[in-house]
Amino acid sequence: MSTPNTKKCLVTFKGYPEKIFVDPGTSITEAARTIGVAIPSICGGQGKCQKCRVEVSGFEKPQLACQFRVYNDVQVIVPEDISYSEYAIDKEAQEKSVELSPAVKKYSVTINDRDLLNYRSKWEFVEDTLRREHGLKVEKVDYPALAKLKDITESAGQLDVSVWMNKEVIDISSSKDESTYGIAIDIGTTTLAAYLCDLSTGKVLTTRSMLNPQVACGEDILSRITYCLKNRSGVSELHEVIIRGVNRLIKETCDSATISSHQIMDMALAGNSCMLHLFLGVDVATLGVPPFQPVFSTLSDIKARDLGIEICDGAYIHVLPLIAGFIGADTSAVILSEEPYKSEEVILIIDAGTNGELVLGNRDRLMCTSCATGPALEGGSIICGMRASPGAIDTVKIDPANCAVEFTVIPEIGKDGKKKYVKPRGICGSGIIDCVAQMYLAGVISKNGHMKRDSCIPRIVQKNGETSFVVARASETDIGEDIVITQGDVRSVQLAKAAIQAALRIMIKKMKLDRLSRIVLAGAFGNVINIDSALALGMFPDCPVDSIEAVGNAAGDGSLIALLNTGKREEIRNVVEKVEHVDLVSEEGFQREFAYATYIPRMESPG
Amino acid sequence: MSTPNTKKCLVTFKGYPEKIFVDPGTSITEAARTIGVAIPSICGGQGKCQKCRVEVSGFEKPQLACQFRVYNDVQVIVPEDISYSEYAIDKEAQEKSVELSPAVKKYSVTINDRDLLNYRSKWEFVEDTLRREHGLKVEKVDYPALAKLKDITESAGQLDVSVWMNKEVIDISSSKDESTYGIAIDIGTTTLAAYLCDLSTGKVLTTRSMLNPQVACGEDILSRITYCLKNRSGVSELHEVIIRGVNRLIKETCDSATISSHQIMDMALAGNSCMLHLFLGVDVATLGVPPFQPVFSTLSDIKARDLGIEICDGAYIHVLPLIAGFIGADTSAVILSEEPYKSEEVILIIDAGTNGELVLGNRDRLMCTSCATGPALEGGSIICGMRASPGAIDTVKIDPANCAVEFTVIPEIGKDGKKKYVKPRGICGSGIIDCVAQMYLAGVISKNGHMKRDSCIPRIVQKNGETSFVVARASETDIGEDIVITQGDVRSVQLAKAAIQAALRIMIKKMKLDRLSRIVLAGAFGNVINIDSALALGMFPDCPVDSIEAVGNAAGDGSLIALLNTGKREEIRNVVEKVEHVDLVSEEGFQREFAYATYIPRMESPG
Repeated sequence: MSTPNTKKCLVTFKGYPEKIFVDPGTSITEAARTIGVAIPSICGGQGKCQKCRVEVSGFEKPQLACQFRVYNDVQVIVPEDISYSEYAIDKEAQEKSVELSPAVKKYSVTINDRDLLNYRSKWEFVEDTLRREHGLKVEKVDYPALAKLKDITESAGQLDVSVWMNKEVIDISSSKDESTYGIAIDIGTTTLAAYLCDLSTGKVLTTRSMLNPQVACGEDILSRITYCLKNRSGVSELHEVIIRGVNRLIKETCDSATISSHQIMDMALAGNSCMLHLFLGVDVATLGVPPFQPVFSTLSDIKARDLGIEICDGAYIHVLPLIAGFIGADTSAVILSEEPYKSEEVILIIDAGTNGELVLGNRDRLMCTSCATGPALEGGSIICGMRASPGAIDTVKIDPANCAVEFTVIPEIGKDGKKKYVKPRGICGSGIIDCVAQMYLAGVISKNGHMKRDSCIPRIVQKNGETSFVVARASETDIGEDIVITQGDVRSVQLAKAAIQAALRIMIKKMKLDRLSRIVLAGAFGNVINIDSALALGMFPDCPVDSIEAVGNAAGDGSLIALLNTGKREEIRNVVEKVEHVDLVSEEGFQREFAYATYIPRMESPG
Repeated sequence: MSTPNTKKCLVTFKGYPEKIFVDPGTSITEAARTIGVAIPSICGGQGKCQKCRVEVSGFEKPQLACQFRVYNDVQVIVPEDISYSEYAIDKEAQEKSVELSPAVKKYSVTINDRDLLNYRSKWEFVEDTLRREHGLKVEKVDYPALAKLKDITESAGQLDVSVWMNKEVIDISSSKDESTYGIAIDIGTTTLAAYLCDLSTGKVLTTRSMLNPQVACGEDILSRITYCLKNRSGVSELHEVIIRGVNRLIKETCDSATISSHQIMDMALAGNSCMLHLFLGVDVATLGVPPFQPVFSTLSDIKARDLGIEICDGAYIHVLPLIAGFIGADTSAVILSEEPYKSEEVILIIDAGTNGELVLGNRDRLMCTSCATGPALEGGSIICGMRASPGAIDTVKIDPANCAVEFTVIPEIGKDGKKKYVKPRGICGSGIIDCVAQMYLAGVISKNGHMKRDSCIPRIVQKNGETSFVVARASETDIGEDIVITQGDVRSVQLAKAAIQAALRIMIKKMKLDRLSRIVLAGAFGNVINIDSALALGMFPDCPVDSIEAVGNAAGDGSLIALLNTGKREEIRNVVEKVEHVDLVSEEGFQREFAYATYIPRMESPG
């Protein structure tokens, strides 16, 4: 038994089997971090953002996980809307028709005892049968597959031999299940998404997503990098957290398809550069300082077991290529999905989240850049912001005549599959963009974003000393308080849209374009944003509304394509080698463009 | 704190850091097994062989580890002579002159910050520099090596890049140590031997050996296989024991050379088929029943980390090819060392230990077989037998006129390096062969091995109801008892030599030879045996004494050759594919040959 000096407190999280013993005085956020329970920490544990409310045994009201210090054994419940949950709408991959040419194929080997004895060993028999019956000259057998060969005799009948890239036997089984499964995973800063496929048909069996459990160590990329710089074991900690998270996601995905995760024979992986460095346990310090050079960009496939990823013992992970420190394999996946490199017309692809990635070009020339948009476009850092989950205000309309506000709320989906209206609890990214655009159009804010105290009198209030616009009154909401957009929130949106606008103008100038014929919006943001509002704010270059297309989760689509067709892996690798990376900071005129772009829709250049 | 019901006893072994808690009533042998402490168990824990005497805290006299039940916390000291120790004499590898062409070479890469920034990532810079400056087009970088790239900047100056087989970067370091180390390991049923080399010079830096800790689960191959058949987790248990043992041996070898085991960049591995199956965690059931077919024979190199072998994170293990279920990679290594496949004259190679492996042939035809000799030739299963360590009677001479016995004893080597005479404690393999041959020549035993009670009256005694010959009287010994050879011991030697003789006669007949021009004795046995005695017993075919050569640890030499030259790995692989394996059991006439061969020197065929 422990002595009083070393008394530890037991913290358990509902739904997690792990038990954690912590020193008295440890915060719940810190305890959660050690086992990878996802609790957001937008303000870095300062108690300001109020996004980490959890239920603690013995306390009636929710507590802030970052402020609550543990001095006794407690049980913690992390509400679904701040922990992981299925963002089925956000992350659904389109079933693109892609020619099937997976990395792993199954071959059948019939056992004949007499033949078997003609060989020096059981493995030599299998090797030679693959050559004789399937014309396949494999180079090696992975050693865990060997262990499964012990029982082979005629009575076993047939073996299923799984071969990777026509050269390595990665699994041998006597099961009659002819399906071969693969999984594509996209590691986002906020969300992990998984697509489970049948590699023999190309069909997507199930899709799951969950909150990246690393959010407990910082909401955005820069705060994760800072975490690694400040903590000696930060890299290995975040590495372990993401590996555990991916394993959890894989297990849930497989459970829902009622297969075993050890039946997964191949994995394709996309994600931003920071996430992929951490996934491999590679230090991210280099991504936090100029010139933001990544340690690696193109990788050979890695054995899943080397990283502790719990799929078939012999399976490999294919990592899509990174382009630069802030343009990761998620952008490669988007490019692979949208194929601008095959297009005659010039295409602009915008993937805006906490970070904005922009790709511009066609088959002759392709360039890309990234810009820091901050979390505003996803509802983060906004006082009443929340993720696009049930209870979030997602569209807003303001009548310029009387300041009447109309809004819609993301409904809950009941167990019967029916939508159920809920009172608003906050406002998500699309609602914020809408609201700021509508405030501008209604004259509530001026061109420079300043909120006019004398406009819309009944809606303009002072909240914590800040001028704010009431979107939903306390009486209408689920939280018993007004849902507002503050002056600071408007500034956040201005900075986010300015980052995108300035980056785009630099790119368009560099490519000497006078007009754009097509804009593709990738990612969840593009799916839900009101394009008229974005245009009103000046987020995109002027172009006809019908030339703007939201393509959904193109990064997910791209990783699926790479999973299903190895030729496509080669294709994107070659494209990435030729993509020009534009470093905005070193571009002449960027600072000026950025300053102009903070205006709504923008300040016209004096020249 | 534990409740009385679950009270466990703490067992510690001197020199081992691990602590083991066992249920009351557990034997010391069982406790030792769980952490791989080597305690012999020749009689399978029946208390008969008396070979497992250990010192137990609180007890004045040594205790039998297999019989001593633990009911309180105890500390155990396993004497050096039954546990691991340096068999420097036995296992010393000859420094054969072999052309240096190791699998891993180090290349120097100079860092220039301006150049570095021209690349998409730090790794691409290294990759391209290897191509530009060394003409080396590598295919991949192992991911743990990537993690070491984070700090590269001009200030780091130079990188040492370790490349495996000219295609994979397995390690990157900024250290200035230009040496690259490799280790060759031979896993014997009884002894593990390691040879640490500088791969850049080919020099053997240090040699170590230790008892195979699997002896705790059975002294010979068949008892290990039986252990796996009887215990559900037997294979994984023996796998873990051997991995731990090899890691311990590697660490001790590196400690004595004052290098870190993580500086070892390559490993070549020999060993018998059963040991190599267990090393890989592959079931050995198939090796215990006809047709004794191994699961694998030729393998691609395996990442050391996959097996938990603690050398450089990216290093590979090269396993020499097996020939058959009872003719392992140790025999391949012997063949590689002796090169009969290049010889014009026919060579017979005998490697006799618990199992005898015989290779016969020349560049035109090569065949091999194995025979079960039992442990007698190594001093096992013999009442007063012991290993060839200090205190063992190693030569015996009997005067036929008066039965006077002269013997020599293996001396201790003092800390000053000088030999120190010790009183005998037992008799080792070479002493036993000598003794039985001399007993035959002195007329103490007849042609059929029967001990004549009326011969050598003062030396013939009854011991435990068995007629025995006193080699050393109690007054002359260290154990205060007579050292004897019993009638049963003579039978064991007869069976061992008969196995070899019969196998040889079958092989010679198959190859249609009338005479042999050269016999090579490999292994410790060949090094120490008195050839006249072996010839007197009829162990070898008749041939001039000077055509018999002992070459020492040829298996060790062969694994060293494979470590130092990758061309040789290919060479032995090709040779092994052509070696004919003779299965004695299915050979006509083997049983008759065996029966004849039990006589001394043999019964002449009636025909």
